[in-house]
Amino acid sequence: MPEQAVSRSHDIDGLMNTIGLQAKAAARPLSVASTDQKNRALLAMASAIEASKDKILQANAIDLAAGKKVGLAASFIDRLTLDETRIASVAEGIRAIAALADPVGQVIAAWDRPNGLQIERVRTPLGVIGVIYESRPNVTADAGALCLKAGNAVILRGGSDSLHSSQAIHACLVEGLKIASLPEHAIQLVPVADRAAVGALLGGLNGTVDVIVPRGGKSLVSRVQTEARVPVFAHLEGICHIYVDKSADLAMAEKIVLNAKMRRTGICGAAETLLIDKAVASTHLEPLVKVLLDAGCEVRGSEAVEKAISGVKAATEEDWRTEYLDAIISVRLVDGISGAIEHISTYSSNHTEAVIAEDGAVVERFFNEIDSAILLHNASTQFADGGEFGMGAEIGIATGKMHARGPVGVEQLTSFKYRVHGTGQIRT
Amino acid sequence: MPEQAVSRSHDIDGLMNTIGLQAKAAARPLSVASTDQKNRALLAMASAIEASKDKILQANAIDLAAGKKVGLAASFIDRLTLDETRIASVAEGIRAIAALADPVGQVIAAWDRPNGLQIERVRTPLGVIGVIYESRPNVTADAGALCLKAGNAVILRGGSDSLHSSQAIHACLVEGLKIASLPEHAIQLVPVADRAAVGALLGGLNGTVDVIVPRGGKSLVSRVQTEARVPVFAHLEGICHIYVDKSADLAMAEKIVLNAKMRRTGICGAAETLLIDKAVASTHLEPLVKVLLDAGCEVRGSEAVEKAISGVKAATEEDWRTEYLDAIISVRLVDGISGAIEHISTYSSNHTEAVIAEDGAVVERFFNEIDSAILLHNASTQFADGGEFGMGAEIGIATGKMHARGPVGVEQLTSFKYRVHGTGQIRT
Repeated sequence: MPEQAVSRSHDIDGLMNTIGLQAKAAARPLSVASTDQKNRALLAMASAIEASKDKILQANAIDLAAGKKVGLAASFIDRLTLDETRIASVAEGIRAIAALADPVGQVIAAWDRPNGLQIERVRTPLGVIGVIYESRPNVTADAGALCLKAGNAVILRGGSDSLHSSQAIHACLVEGLKIASLPEHAIQLVPVADRAAVGALLGGLNGTVDVIVPRGGKSLVSRVQTEARVPVFAHLEGICHIYVDKSADLAMAEKIVLNAKMRRTGICGAAETLLIDKAVASTHLEPLVKVLLDAGCEVRGSEAVEKAISGVKAATEEDWRTEYLDAIISVRLVDGISGAIEHISTYSSNHTEAVIAEDGAVVERFFNEIDSAILLHNASTQFADGGEFGMGAEIGIATGKMHARGPVGVEQLTSFKYRVHGTGQIRT
Repeated sequence: MPEQAVSRSHDIDGLMNTIGLQAKAAARPLSVASTDQKNRALLAMASAIEASKDKILQANAIDLAAGKKVGLAASFIDRLTLDETRIASVAEGIRAIAALADPVGQVIAAWDRPNGLQIERVRTPLGVIGVIYESRPNVTADAGALCLKAGNAVILRGGSDSLHSSQAIHACLVEGLKIASLPEHAIQLVPVADRAAVGALLGGLNGTVDVIVPRGGKSLVSRVQTEARVPVFAHLEGICHIYVDKSADLAMAEKIVLNAKMRRTGICGAAETLLIDKAVASTHLEPLVKVLLDAGCEVRGSEAVEKAISGVKAATEEDWRTEYLDAIISVRLVDGISGAIEHISTYSSNHTEAVIAEDGAVVERFFNEIDSAILLHNASTQFADGGEFGMGAEIGIATGKMHARGPVGVEQLTSFKYRVHGTGQIRT
């Protein structure tokens, strides 16, 4: 390694460790901040963003010019682009988070013991959250506000291509913190584009970071999951399945399948594989596939499906393992609910699966035997979303089994502790 | 590395990976096993242990003879020793776990959405749990039974010195699994004493292990926390504090302080530091210290405490950071609740702390501002125990903020998933 690189990487480590210590120091006063104080900060942030609209757009113009110069893809440029509407919606998003119930201090369980001890389990902030994201500058505001609401300090590391935009938004967040007399290090943005900063954050910054949340594509999430030395709330991909049972209402199935695949094809809750009970292949297969083909969806079928319907391409083994995030779906006939469970258990990414059935016993087996974060009955997989779940806002969807699973909203960004009230009890 | 060592370590890795795959394969049927089936297995295990009493004692005699030959410490030999009473209590412990409510399938939250979707959050097993413990062979049964009750497969890695005893107990557990037609790999015991097996387990066995629980002393827990590449439920130490406020009832404080320190000095919930409000130093300090000295406890005090009371030794900075696990306590005068919070936030291991006070505002600050797993008001720190919390049995106490915190019982050995019932809803 050339000497300059060594010294630069030392500088980054030093910078990141300082950021970690500042976050930890901010976390303590933040953990006891009142709901009112946090909400005042959030509302002030929203106002600051509206008032700083021009500054934010100027900063965004710098990022956009640089991005176009280096030839970033059009979809990337689109995610990077801010305009008046998007800025207004960022401010509205923060106000919506202010309107959420404060999870900190909520009693989530309470019981009394025969000796008179009264035990309560209450929510507490997690501590320090690291958020690593890509091009969307609005994540700066969304993630910062959501972590603050749950009483956590946050270290934001946005994509280097959106650094100026994120810095302009971050300045508004800090203004809100100051107005509410909250520590300004409660929300920190890593101020350098250097990728070594990501490595340092993933290492946990000497134990100051409690959890990492990646927001972005598969390569980012994969790197985070592989390298992180602290817990991660994430999903690598959403290979979501719909199983249409022989007991399904066909009209309902057509409507749900079409929505689950085609409403928006690029989101993690979009269906990628359709499984159809072979007992109803003769009646259900063609209409279900046709509704997709008619909507412009490419259909890749198992041998039986491909042979049965013209316009269907042949699926390979790889198709069952693929999250298309596009107008493509794989279709397979399976041997009833057992076949569906077998297929899903083999290929699922444990994100979201739906069963379309009127037979309660089939639904029960689907719900019990499939271990994905979200299971739906007679509803579209595209409901896999914190907002649709009524959580108000989410920082992502997690498919791990530890702590947070499914949509990660304010509640999932908390831990808990036990408070025990006694009247002089000693243990015998 | 000599060639033999290389090949041996490859053998161990191969063996451990096989154990991991077998556990993962067992976890799936286990996750849908009925409560009745799991309880039948547990009751059969308890009976098998009673019926195999002689075999277990013979195996234990082999371990004890080997342990004495290599000069194991008397305390170690004591923990290793089984007798008829201890075996009977192992069987009773399993029956108590059978009597617990099954956490799997419990609905922990449920709400409806305006569009008619009915959302439930239900408990599911975690998957595969690795338990690493030291000399106590009874952990084989306790941990195996508790993990099974929560629908998890478990890989047990007991201390090499208790291998024969653990194997004899493990044989009884497998007998119970077979009687209830549950997969026999649901509870596996690593059959070799090689320490490389621990390293392999801490690596997560190619993603087959979901969580590791260490049961043992600080050096074991420290190694597990440092090396594990999967989540760990543990506490490194329990530096538990009692703060006696100026509003405390002195008689109650004396009783609780004595119990918290001296009832059993070797458990993690034993108090290690006593903080006394300096506002009542003239009235409370001497009686509180005296009750400890009279009980044979060594008292190490800050300068003011040491000067005030004869028989008190001088505490050093190191004392505030020490978990004595012995009849020793450190004592300090602090500036009211603020001073207590400051001291505890600096030195605590985030396990358990108690406040003795009649002033509700003091209690509220103690409960809000201290972030330890368990906080008690007017009660002994020795209540920090799953049994005392009414959880029936625990596999340990966790001080981390992720997933499990405080006593880790059957509920804490579960994850959850969302089940959503619809009537044809699609997302607009």
